[in-house]
Amino acid sequence: MSQEFTSSLLESAVNELSRLPGIGRKTALRLALYILRRQESEGVALGQSIIDLRRGISYCRQCHNISETELCPVCADAMRDASTVCVVENVKDVMSFENTRQYNGLYHVLGGLISPVDGVGPDMLEINTLVERVAEGNIKEVIIALSPTMDGETTGYYIYRRLRDMNVNISQLARGVSVGNEIEYTDEITLGRSLINRIPFGND
Amino acid sequence: MSQEFTSSLLESAVNELSRLPGIGRKTALRLALYILRRQESEGVALGQSIIDLRRGISYCRQCHNISETELCPVCADAMRDASTVCVVENVKDVMSFENTRQYNGLYHVLGGLISPVDGVGPDMLEINTLVERVAEGNIKEVIIALSPTMDGETTGYYIYRRLRDMNVNISQLARGVSVGNEIEYTDEITLGRSLINRIPFGND
Repeated sequence: MSQEFTSSLLESAVNELSRLPGIGRKTALRLALYILRRQESEGVALGQSIIDLRRGISYCRQCHNISETELCPVCADAMRDASTVCVVENVKDVMSFENTRQYNGLYHVLGGLISPVDGVGPDMLEINTLVERVAEGNIKEVIIALSPTMDGETTGYYIYRRLRDMNVNISQLARGVSVGNEIEYTDEITLGRSLINRIPFGND
Repeated sequence: MSQEFTSSLLESAVNELSRLPGIGRKTALRLALYILRRQESEGVALGQSIIDLRRGISYCRQCHNISETELCPVCADAMRDASTVCVVENVKDVMSFENTRQYNGLYHVLGGLISPVDGVGPDMLEINTLVERVAEGNIKEVIIALSPTMDGETTGYYIYRRLRDMNVNISQLARGVSVGNEIEYTDEITLGRSLINRIPFGND
């Protein structure tokens, strides 16, 4: 879509917005015109928050979660259990586990999953740094908390093989019926696993 | 969705992004994490372009199109025919007509359509300023170029009534079969009008 912009500022904003994933040029134009209709302070706040985000955030040197400081708030928190590390795919998954309020250990963010199809190998992820963290000897348990997909299982198994001869317990998330889901709509593999790994009644 | 953000910068960017129309908190988070994965310069360019857009653009005092200057480039262009004014709903429509490269007159941007359902009355639109422009006496033709919808027709008729006793020709867009559309899929009202308003063969 070639557009006859009567303003170069508008054209430039549309160009930048349309680089975002899932935002085409038509949506970018709609967003830009929306920003123009709103208060100046609102548009400036949006732009500034994006600049601050990009300039102010880097990655935690220990767990590779996003962080405004060298060590992220989780790794820096002395109240958390530094002997347990939960291995997750990405930053969003850290948020998901934090939202459960059930976990008091640390994290290790891989930055993706091994995916032969997408050309992602183990060396492109934070797996070596995980092995180094475990080699330091202070970690008692590594929880592999990856999605139960092909790539997730592959990555989990690869990490398991890298860690199994080290002095650390390796666990993984329980597989079972999702809370609130009906048995009728649960797939048979999940259902089978939930039978095999059944737990004493009232134990959750 | 309450989210446990480990970074206040991320939280603030997600809050700002999710104010945009059609962007919920999940999409906002996805966009923010995308911005974090890209080059710093790219994120800063996006943020800055939004700030520049909002700070740098105002509205043309004559036609009310967006403009970086007091008179927009169209109104300021001495090569354009200042005796013809095309009345459009919004800034996007100016772009659409400019894209046709068939129009050499000026515009008048209403900033919306009269819509009793949405509570938009004539005084909330740039209709009085259009009447004043015409009253100055230099305009020979006003082209009403509004969408053929209920609100568009209402607004067009209201403008027609305001202008009909003034010394100006009032025209409207031709209604007919859309170029590239099949007759089979053209609604009967449009088809009927295209018969009544038929033009000499080869005349377009």
